[in-house]
Amino acid sequence: MIYELYYWPGIQGRGEFVRLALEEAGAKYVDIALVSEQEGGGVPALEKFLESDFVERPPFAPPFLKAGKQLIGQTPNILFFLGERLNLAPRDAAGKLWTNQLQLTISDFVVEIHDTHHPIGSGLYYEEQKPAAKRRSQDFRENRLPKFIGFFERVLKGNSARGPWMVGARLTYADLSMAQVIAGLRYAFPLATRKALQARPRLRALHDAVFERPRIKRYVASVRRVAFNNDDIFRHYSGLDR
Amino acid sequence: MIYELYYWPGIQGRGEFVRLALEEAGAKYVDIALVSEQEGGGVPALEKFLESDFVERPPFAPPFLKAGKQLIGQTPNILFFLGERLNLAPRDAAGKLWTNQLQLTISDFVVEIHDTHHPIGSGLYYEEQKPAAKRRSQDFRENRLPKFIGFFERVLKGNSARGPWMVGARLTYADLSMAQVIAGLRYAFPLATRKALQARPRLRALHDAVFERPRIKRYVASVRRVAFNNDDIFRHYSGLDR
Repeated sequence: MIYELYYWPGIQGRGEFVRLALEEAGAKYVDIALVSEQEGGGVPALEKFLESDFVERPPFAPPFLKAGKQLIGQTPNILFFLGERLNLAPRDAAGKLWTNQLQLTISDFVVEIHDTHHPIGSGLYYEEQKPAAKRRSQDFRENRLPKFIGFFERVLKGNSARGPWMVGARLTYADLSMAQVIAGLRYAFPLATRKALQARPRLRALHDAVFERPRIKRYVASVRRVAFNNDDIFRHYSGLDR
Repeated sequence: MIYELYYWPGIQGRGEFVRLALEEAGAKYVDIALVSEQEGGGVPALEKFLESDFVERPPFAPPFLKAGKQLIGQTPNILFFLGERLNLAPRDAAGKLWTNQLQLTISDFVVEIHDTHHPIGSGLYYEEQKPAAKRRSQDFRENRLPKFIGFFERVLKGNSARGPWMVGARLTYADLSMAQVIAGLRYAFPLATRKALQARPRLRALHDAVFERPRIKRYVASVRRVAFNNDDIFRHYSGLDR
């Protein structure tokens, strides 16, 4: 099986959570964002599925994954599917649900991170919503960021299998996503994130354990990894960090 | 099995998506929001799980469901679990994923509906963010609402099993949630929703088909159904509807 990942070119975005799972597992996949339009990749390839009336089960938005004839949308749904196949989720039903629950909480967190710079509308420029972004970011730094970070640290602490991961003794896709969120937060809100992680040794250790894994290291060092940038979910505007 | 549903008292909120599934299936459950604090219900019962260090797999926020010893959080995750048990989801793996994908898209929609009146912060009052709410609502009415509504109508149109439902020929939990969202939108944005649904006969028919089901009718007429109100996700502020 060669998977095809469909996502916007030029940003990590939500596609990155899927890429990290595929890369960690050493799965064969084509990242359509890295394929030129001439060769059938890029934005037109996405739009074919988003706008066509011939897709019976269409995705609402990227990312989506093509696995044979199956087209799967929504990041946590894609990861639920891949977790089983790539051995990045527990085998028992309760463990699968718990991993999914963590991933959904990470997704909620990601929406709130995104909305710090886009509180009024995702179709408007940041420059059109700067005062609102400043207020929302303040609420995020003071309330939401510590709340989410505290929750995930507590999950790590509560995992009776001592180790760096959130679910039992083995790495899951939720750990990969969590590490990616920490990396993104450090890029976007370096000051607030340093403060929020100060008394959170387990989350810092999880981040390091993920980015030290050989396949993840190789991936991050490769041309396949797009750098963090200010067209993405995680954006660094210093005015929003203080 | 008697399920226990934990959610904030006084509002429908995200708990309602779970209630509709339990009610449609005729499942036995205790709605902890309707149990008095003296009898172990209400907010203290929620907080016991949200704040305790003794819960190994804690929920981040309500709703959460207690099923025997299992504690399950995140609305789409609860519904994934219940869908299987209550026969409100397809039996095949691809159908389960597709139903989950629709539910996740409904969840995204619900976040955006909520944020029309709370674009700056969920911990602040609406009155503290009225100008931002007005701008966000305009973007919602003009762009996001038609986009989501158009997507779900297309899903209904694309379902080759002719009938009122989104997935195959049988009712799923995603249909119940979709009908609830339409009811909520009609309460919150009566003008914008009428316009958005004008050329969407399939969504209107889905709404009616859900609310005509005997168990749902009985539930909605009962004291168990909290009325829509302005402390909830769906709020009616006429200034945000035009």
